Amino acid sequence: MSQPIDIAVIGATGTVGETLVQILEEQDFPVGTLHLLASNESAGSGVMFRSKSLRVREVDSFDFTKVKLVFFAAGPAVTRSFAPRAQAAGCAVIDLSGGLSAEAAPALVPEANAARLENLAQPVQVSSPSAAAVALSVALAPLKNLLDIERINVTACLAVSAQGREAVSELARQTAELLNARPLEPRFFDRQMAFNLLAQVGANDTDGHGALERRLVGELREVLGLPALKISVSCIQVPVFFGDSYSVSVQSRKAVDLAAVNAALEAADSIELVEEGDYPTPVGDAVGQDVVYVGRVRGGIDEVEQLNLWLTTDNVRKGAALNAVQLAQLLIKHVV
Amino acid sequence: MSQPIDIAVIGATGTVGETLVQILEEQDFPVGTLHLLASNESAGSGVMFRSKSLRVREVDSFDFTKVKLVFFAAGPAVTRSFAPRAQAAGCAVIDLSGGLSAEAAPALVPEANAARLENLAQPVQVSSPSAAAVALSVALAPLKNLLDIERINVTACLAVSAQGREAVSELARQTAELLNARPLEPRFFDRQMAFNLLAQVGANDTDGHGALERRLVGELREVLGLPALKISVSCIQVPVFFGDSYSVSVQSRKAVDLAAVNAALEAADSIELVEEGDYPTPVGDAVGQDVVYVGRVRGGIDEVEQLNLWLTTDNVRKGAALNAVQLAQLLIKHVV
Repeated sequence: MSQPIDIAVIGATGTVGETLVQILEEQDFPVGTLHLLASNESAGSGVMFRSKSLRVREVDSFDFTKVKLVFFAAGPAVTRSFAPRAQAAGCAVIDLSGGLSAEAAPALVPEANAARLENLAQPVQVSSPSAAAVALSVALAPLKNLLDIERINVTACLAVSAQGREAVSELARQTAELLNARPLEPRFFDRQMAFNLLAQVGANDTDGHGALERRLVGELREVLGLPALKISVSCIQVPVFFGDSYSVSVQSRKAVDLAAVNAALEAADSIELVEEGDYPTPVGDAVGQDVVYVGRVRGGIDEVEQLNLWLTTDNVRKGAALNAVQLAQLLIKHVV
Repeated sequence: MSQPIDIAVIGATGTVGETLVQILEEQDFPVGTLHLLASNESAGSGVMFRSKSLRVREVDSFDFTKVKLVFFAAGPAVTRSFAPRAQAAGCAVIDLSGGLSAEAAPALVPEANAARLENLAQPVQVSSPSAAAVALSVALAPLKNLLDIERINVTACLAVSAQGREAVSELARQTAELLNARPLEPRFFDRQMAFNLLAQVGANDTDGHGALERRLVGELREVLGLPALKISVSCIQVPVFFGDSYSVSVQSRKAVDLAAVNAALEAADSIELVEEGDYPTPVGDAVGQDVVYVGRVRGGIDEVEQLNLWLTTDNVRKGAALNAVQLAQLLIKHVV
């Protein structure tokens, strides 16, 4: 077993941060002292780790020389404020917020581009990409050499938990109001989320693309090592609490060998291929699990160069917290 | 005003049939006698029309020589059983069930291919296509000549009402059970539908495609008059009561002129183009309306030959009942 190392988790009270702490414990990660940090509002609360309640402290006054590894699981602004301090103190940084540029912190998904970890400058800064990029990378990495991918079309159906705890409460509250025929009063979302679909997540830029859509495109190209990959993506918000789903259509430049695709998916460690005739759902399969579920593997209706897939995965766990812990496992072996 | 004509509606007690009767009344359609028909189970109930409750009778014993026009709004098996009798009695037939072949009853969406009505053999048999084909045809018809469309990628997010009243009750019941922490007992759907997404609608064929997906491909090619159009489609079932939504990516062979696309959408009668910065939703916009809402009109992230759109429309009204009544309006002008 590795030498225990001292670790800080910033954003420890959020949905992702809390899950991250839980996975460190589940995996018996060699943690020495664990420092849980958050911004002012959340500091002071307690989070359970190895049967003890650890007090969450303010990140502002934290001395980063106390730790060797820092997870940034709060917002991108928090990462941009404190990552330089962590790095100056010699800490390895794993950012989950998308707050650092691809140059400063390459995006990593162990199943797809673990080799990228070698030859990084010390102290290492890496980025655990968006849940969408994790799910798509895990599913497409085993297929990359089987297909000659020209373009990927994705409709990402995102659970409200991606927006944090408030969004989860809001969906529950709106649903109860509607079922009880009380007037709907949207608070977190700007309109009805219950029994409805929202066509975008957050605001769009002047070209009509959302920040998450652009982030996904950049991360997916980087992680798959396909810088010229064409990607069309629409992120929509669906009335699901946990578990993101992806309707994916891959256009290849050559005929798709479906038997080989199925065999490659079947053989991949982090993929659960659901048998023909059934299909995975976020609630029924993905939630709480460590794999990406893949189903509805099929060709085009009359294009042999097309592959269609349905993916679903736990956005908080596999899409974020687990990927970051998997990165930490690799870091402590190779780097820290 | 046209001469009143006698009409039969088969499937008058279903969600679509009931809406159809309501639209005939709203539009002051020149109905002489209206005969409401259904299969055994529903016969005997009453449906309101022009302030009177009309008794719903068994289709089995109906004398089709009493009417000139028949709407088939029950299942495809009912259409296949009774359309030959209606036709033998000289009735024009408008089928909403997908029960007739494209040769026997061409698919028609007035905004896209009304001209197809000319030169049809008497008595006329036409098909009002699936809600998905109606929505996509209405949105794409004005763009057909602006783009040189190579392929359309669609993720169709379908409301439960497409499956009828039982599916609507089931979503409400499941939601209430979950909010009240009672054990979930799926009945209509084979698993949890509340707060979940189902990756397919109905069973798939041996190639993995659903009947609705194949139907959409055939109808869209026919209605748009583009028999070689490449279409990738995934139909998913979402926890929304009414209103279908479509995430659409169009690949053109030439650069897309977004200003011209916006102008064409703006000018189309049956389209409501939602301004940049906002977007339409099924619950907030589409339900109860007679148009297809279009939003998030944008190019590709870095492909000038790509056009991305979000559509939402009332699946029962615009997607089915209204399209059928619009067809009837054309029929009584030109044919009946």
